Amino acid sequence: MIRFYSENIADVKALSSEDSAHCVRVLRKQCGQTIDVVDGKGNVYTCIITDANPRNVKVEITGSRKEPVHWNKKITLAVAPTKNADRMEWLAEKATEMGIDNLVLLRTEHSERKQMKTDRLRRVMISAMKQSLKAVLPTIEGPKDFTAFIDETDPKSNLLIAHCEKDKPRMPLLSRADSLDQDIVIMIGPEGDFSETEIKKALESGFKPITLGQSRLRTETAAMFAIAAIHASDDAQMMQK
Amino acid sequence: MIRFYSENIADVKALSSEDSAHCVRVLRKQCGQTIDVVDGKGNVYTCIITDANPRNVKVEITGSRKEPVHWNKKITLAVAPTKNADRMEWLAEKATEMGIDNLVLLRTEHSERKQMKTDRLRRVMISAMKQSLKAVLPTIEGPKDFTAFIDETDPKSNLLIAHCEKDKPRMPLLSRADSLDQDIVIMIGPEGDFSETEIKKALESGFKPITLGQSRLRTETAAMFAIAAIHASDDAQMMQK
Repeated sequence: MIRFYSENIADVKALSSEDSAHCVRVLRKQCGQTIDVVDGKGNVYTCIITDANPRNVKVEITGSRKEPVHWNKKITLAVAPTKNADRMEWLAEKATEMGIDNLVLLRTEHSERKQMKTDRLRRVMISAMKQSLKAVLPTIEGPKDFTAFIDETDPKSNLLIAHCEKDKPRMPLLSRADSLDQDIVIMIGPEGDFSETEIKKALESGFKPITLGQSRLRTETAAMFAIAAIHASDDAQMMQK
Repeated sequence: MIRFYSENIADVKALSSEDSAHCVRVLRKQCGQTIDVVDGKGNVYTCIITDANPRNVKVEITGSRKEPVHWNKKITLAVAPTKNADRMEWLAEKATEMGIDNLVLLRTEHSERKQMKTDRLRRVMISAMKQSLKAVLPTIEGPKDFTAFIDETDPKSNLLIAHCEKDKPRMPLLSRADSLDQDIVIMIGPEGDFSETEIKKALESGFKPITLGQSRLRTETAAMFAIAAIHASDDAQMMQK
């Protein structure tokens, strides 16, 4: 079933103009019909359309249920934005579909792009949340300085930094990311990799160095690879339990 | 180092018009300079430019080396093309970057797109091969009928079908795809999933049913998720050896 998103649906009892148009103009929903509206915080509201205004659909809430994320640990993906904005939008979509809790844009020494508006990424993530039938919208932050980000990470989390320095010891991602319930933070560098200083700083702050394999991956591919691997590994472990 | 692609470089000793333009106009390479040219079959040729013609760069081969793929099993990804061609191009890029051997386009009962030209996908794959510093170009076939594809699969391979029928038994991908050297074939259905008849036919032909987790993934996300998970799991296993 198609889902709509309205952050404050419980208060406003209406859809945004965009969702209203989609609901009435595209899906031809009418007064009296039932729709599901999520608030991005894990709640799904069953709503009856009381006014099928294509610019402002109004609803009456007839029920609600909790739908938390289906994984057990908080997954934070911190990634240096690519020069090409499309590639970041693509990543935001895929990461939301597969499932993350936070997306942090990192400003690093070798970043080709130090600024990036998050509005557009957020819209892509809302779409992906609805499309993949989730009720929780990942947060998005940044761009944030590498050091500032490192300093605020919780040392109790499983802190991982993926870098490409072949002569430095690194473990494969899945030999490091095998806990089902320890929160995980994974940092992915820019096309030019993290600088030596940044890698040093991360390791001193408790991050463990990992490799994503022998293929040279683009930034967005690396990020998506990590999220896919974490979920696939968790799924297989859950099965064994 | 940038790589160029010329399928028959050993015979023709020249770059394609596209690569010639890139080499001379964009990268400003000159006569006497050395470049690496791959043939897509696992060979890397060290070449000296003898004619820096922007429409037809000619070279002399001074050496060559084998660079086979870095994984041990043949990975075949068979996927029903998405309606939106961009999404397939994106998948072709990502799958090549992460590493596959064959990409097969499947024609299924619920396919929204039954035809798809492979030229454009092949070009994307060549680009991704060069960009990710590989020397082997995955093959691309199809669109091929579901049944024809099933009938020609090697029963000694690890045959997997990812489907979304929640009431049917399915194992998580990584509890099924844990062999480092058994060839693997993974089928990913269209947005409307495989039909019941198709799933039945696949299971009768030795395919094992798998799930890619609880998230509802788009076709191209599901395919990419599977390839990422397979490589990440292999990497972790190799480490333990």
